[in-house]
Amino acid sequence: MAKEITSREEDYSQWYLDIVNKAGLASNSKVRGCMVIKPYGFAIWEKMRDELDRRFKETGHQNAYFPLLIPKSFLSKEEDHVEGFAKECAVVTHHRLMANPNGKGVVVDPDAKLEEELIIRPTSETIIWDTYRDWIQSYRDLPLLVNQWANVMRWEMRTRAFLRTAEFLWQEGHTAHSTKEEAVEESRMILDLYADFAETFMAMPVYKGEKTPHERFAGADNTYTIEALMQDGKALQSGTSHFLGQNFAKAFDVKFLNEKNKEEYVWATSWGVSTRLMGALIMAHSDDRGLVLPPKLAPIQVVIVPVPKPNDAINAKVDEIMAALKAKGISVKYDDDKKKRPGFKYAEYEMRGVPVRLGLGKRDLENNTIEVARRDKERDNGGKYSIALDSVVEHVEQLLEDIQTGLYQKALNFRKEKTYKVDTWDEFVDVIENKGGFAYAHWDGTTETELKIKELTKATTRCIPLDVLFGEEGEGKCILTGEPSAKRVLFAKAY
Amino acid sequence: MAKEITSREEDYSQWYLDIVNKAGLASNSKVRGCMVIKPYGFAIWEKMRDELDRRFKETGHQNAYFPLLIPKSFLSKEEDHVEGFAKECAVVTHHRLMANPNGKGVVVDPDAKLEEELIIRPTSETIIWDTYRDWIQSYRDLPLLVNQWANVMRWEMRTRAFLRTAEFLWQEGHTAHSTKEEAVEESRMILDLYADFAETFMAMPVYKGEKTPHERFAGADNTYTIEALMQDGKALQSGTSHFLGQNFAKAFDVKFLNEKNKEEYVWATSWGVSTRLMGALIMAHSDDRGLVLPPKLAPIQVVIVPVPKPNDAINAKVDEIMAALKAKGISVKYDDDKKKRPGFKYAEYEMRGVPVRLGLGKRDLENNTIEVARRDKERDNGGKYSIALDSVVEHVEQLLEDIQTGLYQKALNFRKEKTYKVDTWDEFVDVIENKGGFAYAHWDGTTETELKIKELTKATTRCIPLDVLFGEEGEGKCILTGEPSAKRVLFAKAY
Repeated sequence: MAKEITSREEDYSQWYLDIVNKAGLASNSKVRGCMVIKPYGFAIWEKMRDELDRRFKETGHQNAYFPLLIPKSFLSKEEDHVEGFAKECAVVTHHRLMANPNGKGVVVDPDAKLEEELIIRPTSETIIWDTYRDWIQSYRDLPLLVNQWANVMRWEMRTRAFLRTAEFLWQEGHTAHSTKEEAVEESRMILDLYADFAETFMAMPVYKGEKTPHERFAGADNTYTIEALMQDGKALQSGTSHFLGQNFAKAFDVKFLNEKNKEEYVWATSWGVSTRLMGALIMAHSDDRGLVLPPKLAPIQVVIVPVPKPNDAINAKVDEIMAALKAKGISVKYDDDKKKRPGFKYAEYEMRGVPVRLGLGKRDLENNTIEVARRDKERDNGGKYSIALDSVVEHVEQLLEDIQTGLYQKALNFRKEKTYKVDTWDEFVDVIENKGGFAYAHWDGTTETELKIKELTKATTRCIPLDVLFGEEGEGKCILTGEPSAKRVLFAKAY
Repeated sequence: MAKEITSREEDYSQWYLDIVNKAGLASNSKVRGCMVIKPYGFAIWEKMRDELDRRFKETGHQNAYFPLLIPKSFLSKEEDHVEGFAKECAVVTHHRLMANPNGKGVVVDPDAKLEEELIIRPTSETIIWDTYRDWIQSYRDLPLLVNQWANVMRWEMRTRAFLRTAEFLWQEGHTAHSTKEEAVEESRMILDLYADFAETFMAMPVYKGEKTPHERFAGADNTYTIEALMQDGKALQSGTSHFLGQNFAKAFDVKFLNEKNKEEYVWATSWGVSTRLMGALIMAHSDDRGLVLPPKLAPIQVVIVPVPKPNDAINAKVDEIMAALKAKGISVKYDDDKKKRPGFKYAEYEMRGVPVRLGLGKRDLENNTIEVARRDKERDNGGKYSIALDSVVEHVEQLLEDIQTGLYQKALNFRKEKTYKVDTWDEFVDVIENKGGFAYAHWDGTTETELKIKELTKATTRCIPLDVLFGEEGEGKCILTGEPSAKRVLFAKAY
């Protein structure tokens, strides 16, 4: 089974698609650009969703649900927003089909044309702020901290499973505040929440930062982002949090009476992560044998395989181990299928990224041993070994923690290696074109230069980091124009 | 606040809408027939969803996600299905907007017309069975037990919050089996799961039964249903489970190799419940003071109100009570808002259906008492009383159980009263037009008579019950035609 995967070196894109398909994460559908998320892939997404949902609620947010369809005219109300989102989208124009008068099947009923076309939401700021006008009257109604889990649609021309699909699943938070400070603080708090989730749950280090004005969300005054590094040296924007100022409040006339009984426009944020995180997860950790999952996201954390076949003595011991593991909150599966050889099973669970595999045979029982295989290491490099059978529960519990932190540390080391402080154009080009990763460089702050750099190298500004990366940095000169620069920016090629 | 509700007697429909609005469950949107589910309403839906999801997983089902959009031609593949669903639906015809060349805003780009129109899913059998063709090759791939939580859209002409909306949220299970028996068993098992959920979780008794051929799902060989009774004497179909035979397998060419290596078509089921259950919940239990919630579905099970205002001694005691209740898994809120009077708070929590309210004042502390108000009883009829403060935690724990079972028993008694065994046309008409509720009557089994009865009385066949309702029933004569009838059927006016 593992032999069917293309190696990363041979063809990185194909390797990615092979994992998506062969690990049972997603498949294509007959609808252009829309994927089917298969049960195993969806189980991983559910783990992400549940943990994020828990964190949102812990920080005072509530879920709600807003309509899928947005009147066309809503999109035009916020000037920048329509530029960014109204272009490529699915447009509903009719509400009825009828039997084809000239043959088989059904056709659109021309009499059922809508007065105003409806757009499948590409994001929900417009419909939500149109609703908030009714929900918000006074400062007592604020803050309003709402999140929605939903499907959205953007008519992308070139699609790739999870990374860029026409329809995708996401959460979108939309909050309303009485002061600018509070809204900015909310957008920063969510950025931290996303970063902590990415690092502690997905084992994926991220840079937190601000987007340049050119890369901002359409309609935002400021966009914060978390940027991760994939194994091919490309960056992946993994979540964004926007401070929207009063732009949507003004566009949809949402005002409140403040404590002094004076009318003011409401301040807003919005923020989201999507099934794109599944793509990030795959590319952050996986290898040429298939998917590698951090234990916190693994639907099956431990699989037990009888060697070579189940028997009563093995089954009895496995029952005991499973009960003990489950009592510790560890998810475990016993694969006692008699029709498949152990080697076949090993390859399958490696492909699916199950963090720990235990093999138990007749001789193990006699010797009080059990074989342990950890997915994050190569077989001949500490990935496979035997331990005392009596110690298996404690061992596995510790091992899952070690794998979680080990994957994070490995990804962090990789990112450290691949983040280059560069001061000349030649160095910059060398990083972008040969080395891969982030180039941390001075830039003159103009969109013109940003676009020129993109044109020349395909690298984009990923973010202006919030943290200090290489000790305190002073001013400098733009790598392209030599003009003065106040701060370095992270550049990279990106997904 | 409570004064703003229309009473049930005055105007039942308006009473329903008043509760939806004033309890903060949902609000209308600018998109025809599409509602906004507000945070409090969504929190109740989440409780339903999480419990159902737990039960689906416990019975071996996995979640997945299939595309929102369905190619128009898919709908025509199953002949009955297209009849039932292809008529009133949202049709996507274009994939781009452009700046209006003749003025402001955006218009549909005529160059972006789709080759084939796409339909927003009214239900997903077609796209799912088109996918299953790739997933199923051999009997080893079966059974395939998949569920999806999703939004769907049916272009309803007359809509009402939760009960009938253009867009609604639901779960749809789609399973594939190697034998007819196994598929039938699955559809029956899910029916039982739905019924048990409705009764033990929603405190809402339901009749389980088969639909008549005329009332079946479009494309099913058999449809099972759970039917609940609302307080106005109308029935509400609350969930359906369909045995689809091989209809979709044949339409989408889904075959498998059986154990004898022979090719066969796959057997199918589908089943679903939706946000309609929210409507059922409201109408099953609520009263003229507002929403009444069974404790298992209440986002806040207990609210504590300081009387008349919070102070240090009260706060300290409340902290203690809250910690003890939370430790027992009871959700509790302390409303220490100083700007609102206790009476105002009482009315608000009554409106929102919070099952138990505790009032604690200075004198209570001195006397070691606490006031308890239970939402399911009238104030002057056991709804308000004092207990020893020391016993509050045990008391509340037991009280929540009593309210849960009490609501069920009350609804069950009401249904018992309102289920009439009738043998003549006059009795039938009297039940349907005057008494309200279910008429359990003989019917000749023809669609013609069924439609005639509907035309004359607006009553429809709700189901052929699976259980014995009034002791063993023999054959009889149709109430309308006098023709022989093998079995009685439940008739009622319905939502």
